[in-house]
Amino acid sequence: MSRRVLGNVSISILEKGGVYIHIQLQQKIAYYKQLNKRISHLDEAARLLNWDLSTGAPPKAIGVRSEVISTLSSEQYKLSTSDEMGDILFELSKPDNMKHLNFILKRSLEEDNKNYLRLMSISPESYRDYINIRTQAQSVWKNAKFKKDFSLLKPYLKKIVEFKRQVVKTSGYKGHPYNFLLDEYEPGMTVEKLDKIFYSLKENIMGILDNVKISEYPTKAKNSIFTQEFDVTKQENVILKLLNNMGFCMSKGRLDHSPHPFALRLNSGDVRLTINKFHPLKFKGALFAALHEGGHGLYNQNIGRELENTPLFVGASHGVHESQSRFWENIVGRSLDFWYYFKQELSNDFPSQMKGISPEEIYLDVNKLDNSKIRTSSDELSYNLHIIVRYELEKSLIAGELEVDDLPKAWSEKTKEYLGFLPKDDGEGILQDIHWAKGYFGYFPTYALGNIYAAQLTEKVKIDIPDISSKIRKGEFTHITNWMIDNIYTYGKLLPPGELIKEVTGEEVNVKAFTNYLANKYSEIF
Amino acid sequence: MSRRVLGNVSISILEKGGVYIHIQLQQKIAYYKQLNKRISHLDEAARLLNWDLSTGAPPKAIGVRSEVISTLSSEQYKLSTSDEMGDILFELSKPDNMKHLNFILKRSLEEDNKNYLRLMSISPESYRDYINIRTQAQSVWKNAKFKKDFSLLKPYLKKIVEFKRQVVKTSGYKGHPYNFLLDEYEPGMTVEKLDKIFYSLKENIMGILDNVKISEYPTKAKNSIFTQEFDVTKQENVILKLLNNMGFCMSKGRLDHSPHPFALRLNSGDVRLTINKFHPLKFKGALFAALHEGGHGLYNQNIGRELENTPLFVGASHGVHESQSRFWENIVGRSLDFWYYFKQELSNDFPSQMKGISPEEIYLDVNKLDNSKIRTSSDELSYNLHIIVRYELEKSLIAGELEVDDLPKAWSEKTKEYLGFLPKDDGEGILQDIHWAKGYFGYFPTYALGNIYAAQLTEKVKIDIPDISSKIRKGEFTHITNWMIDNIYTYGKLLPPGELIKEVTGEEVNVKAFTNYLANKYSEIF
Repeated sequence: MSRRVLGNVSISILEKGGVYIHIQLQQKIAYYKQLNKRISHLDEAARLLNWDLSTGAPPKAIGVRSEVISTLSSEQYKLSTSDEMGDILFELSKPDNMKHLNFILKRSLEEDNKNYLRLMSISPESYRDYINIRTQAQSVWKNAKFKKDFSLLKPYLKKIVEFKRQVVKTSGYKGHPYNFLLDEYEPGMTVEKLDKIFYSLKENIMGILDNVKISEYPTKAKNSIFTQEFDVTKQENVILKLLNNMGFCMSKGRLDHSPHPFALRLNSGDVRLTINKFHPLKFKGALFAALHEGGHGLYNQNIGRELENTPLFVGASHGVHESQSRFWENIVGRSLDFWYYFKQELSNDFPSQMKGISPEEIYLDVNKLDNSKIRTSSDELSYNLHIIVRYELEKSLIAGELEVDDLPKAWSEKTKEYLGFLPKDDGEGILQDIHWAKGYFGYFPTYALGNIYAAQLTEKVKIDIPDISSKIRKGEFTHITNWMIDNIYTYGKLLPPGELIKEVTGEEVNVKAFTNYLANKYSEIF
Repeated sequence: MSRRVLGNVSISILEKGGVYIHIQLQQKIAYYKQLNKRISHLDEAARLLNWDLSTGAPPKAIGVRSEVISTLSSEQYKLSTSDEMGDILFELSKPDNMKHLNFILKRSLEEDNKNYLRLMSISPESYRDYINIRTQAQSVWKNAKFKKDFSLLKPYLKKIVEFKRQVVKTSGYKGHPYNFLLDEYEPGMTVEKLDKIFYSLKENIMGILDNVKISEYPTKAKNSIFTQEFDVTKQENVILKLLNNMGFCMSKGRLDHSPHPFALRLNSGDVRLTINKFHPLKFKGALFAALHEGGHGLYNQNIGRELENTPLFVGASHGVHESQSRFWENIVGRSLDFWYYFKQELSNDFPSQMKGISPEEIYLDVNKLDNSKIRTSSDELSYNLHIIVRYELEKSLIAGELEVDDLPKAWSEKTKEYLGFLPKDDGEGILQDIHWAKGYFGYFPTYALGNIYAAQLTEKVKIDIPDISSKIRKGEFTHITNWMIDNIYTYGKLLPPGELIKEVTGEEVNVKAFTNYLANKYSEIF
């Protein structure tokens, strides 16, 4: 794959088209680009408003501000489904026009056509009803989680699942009905492929878990390192320096605080990260959140500017995006190499807390197997089993093989089977994630795919940067980040994730690299 | 004036209309309200984006973000000039419909009709050209000011003035052509009225200045109070406490920092103030900026919610808005009563800085006559002369009696005549304000009108709250703020400023109160 693919469209047209066609087509292209620009501008505005609500808006701003965001989304929806959009997509997609377009424009059209058909297959009324239910469901979820009572959420979730089933039915799909939802987050991924991938992943992880006894975790792993107090101003300095070192550019970004960490792409010069408010006793959480969101942030800051204002100015997929956050959080951030570098860094700012502690001890501490009941705080092994539980339930729900009424029972059974425990209540079971209340069906699998992609990419990085280990030990991340820019970030959504991974690593998506990585890590530890 | 005017529209319609008309008209009204809501939502989004650019957006966000703001404005423009808007305005404005509408709806229609005609009288192309020139002119102004060279700005200013003259010509106007521009900022104000007001103001101020000799300013006025260092964290605490005391509600607002202080209304639950970054040596500036913007903020936080999403959800005029900032900054903040309270406040946080300093000394310090060459830093007397210089020049420019080429000479002559000095270069003369580069012709007079209104309102406040002086000495501001809410804020733009002032004070707009206030203050000081 060569960067030339991102050349300017007008050059390719001047090269290929006659004068008459050129001018007419140029006008159509300009019109199409203008429409996309308006859509992308409305989207950026809505995103900034959401960021503001999450980070610092006054409490009483929320009522009207939510309506403003909904107005912006609705203007965006109107434009995306407008006759103008339909007509220009139809016009440019004609083979006679298509053949003059460069790759960026072709892919943009493909994406926009897909999106247009998706949106047009739902009536504006039922879409609006769905958005309403979803909005209500999210606050109901909060309350239900607090009360540990799934029955509160059930009526809302039923409607959401019903809507999803309906969408799948009217939209048409190939193979399993769930494919349609998967494809939204992970284009090209199917149940047929994913069943194999996850089966293999599950077998391997269970094999590793069989070989380790959590109770025999090396006694060197001290619980006490990150239970010490860390000054919050120094935490901030350390984390800003780390992000800078990773290549996250503060003249194109910010770091703020929000109840749930996230990374947000606004435009090529504005990518924002958030982590929880600093707290003296929560340094470890802040650090790994910064590594995680920093990975997303690097991706967002380095998508080719040629893609700006097109539907391709995003990551290749949720899975590929997650591969970047997981790469920094786990593959780098939970490696012994990293702690050789970072323990030294921390010793400068926190000499007393780091006194007498070795990189190996921290390495053990941040890789503890705890078989957590909660997905978000679980270790690198069981995390994926949490995902597979959710994937299998979603699949059955969408196919109509499982009903929302039977979901808690199915949840418990699967959890028992894969993770070996029964949730003691709905709060630590089926209500632990907000995703379903948000209508995010098809999303969970991308977290595990992120782990898988990250490991596949890492194997290639190690070939291209043979001294990566010693570089990480010195905190030299430039080569790594540049490798990701050149191989992944630049291309945005130009290629489907499967093709991108194949193009870069030479292999289909598969779990070998990831399970090797896990087996090596835990055999080293035990 | 009674608050009942803000009752719910549907009640008044149910009372007055027959069933058939009621339903039809209700639908039209709902449609009209929906249009206004969309416009107001787009406006709020654009405002928040601008706030973000001024307060904390990464430097490289600006390029695309400016385009996003311009897209939002253009969507707003399209809606405001759409056939839908034109048709519904025409429809509802029919006498048969109008008679069923309540006062809020009638006034909304009036405002929207006015705005619609204003926008329709300009072709979209020439409006776009104007916006472009204006955007360029602002950055040219910065450079020209830095180089102290008006000739750089001249070609841009010529185009702006030409556009304004054209707008005035095609829009039609009564009396003086400048009336049309004045009316945009100060509805109902005319050159015919303002000439009289400003003539009287000028005569009075010059009379006061004749009686005082700046060189004989009381020697008690120490320059040294605010040249001490004030800890920035304590500055922030003191200022937040003061704003809270004034009645500015932080659950409906924020205080941030920006290069130029401003107050921003986003919605009824979100009003934001900014002042310069705190600096140990710039406490006085921060304090008076907070009082000033706090005054705007109180107005913005207390406009009747019944007016939300209508064109009336703003201040009555720029002048009335400014009356509130001036009231808090000058009439309260530069009073001896205030310093009896606030010196005590400051003594808690800054005991060493306040040691041995009396309220009287601070009072003299913050009321020094310095005959500054710069409008924004001039005292309460000469400030208004700066405004009158600009007003007279603008008037002549718009009438075609003065050309941009001759502006610097005219500026110098007027400044010499009214203020007694010649600017030593363009930087401290004609380039000191950005307003003209922004196309703000008709704006300057509202600053002086703000002073005049503030003094008229104060006379009425003193009647209604006889012990106001002792209340201020104790820092009890609740009665004052409530008075402003009940008499001014609630009504938003329901009444034109002249009528509002008359309604509240019983008098036409006149300079008596303001010149009495000035004469008393400076006779007390000298």
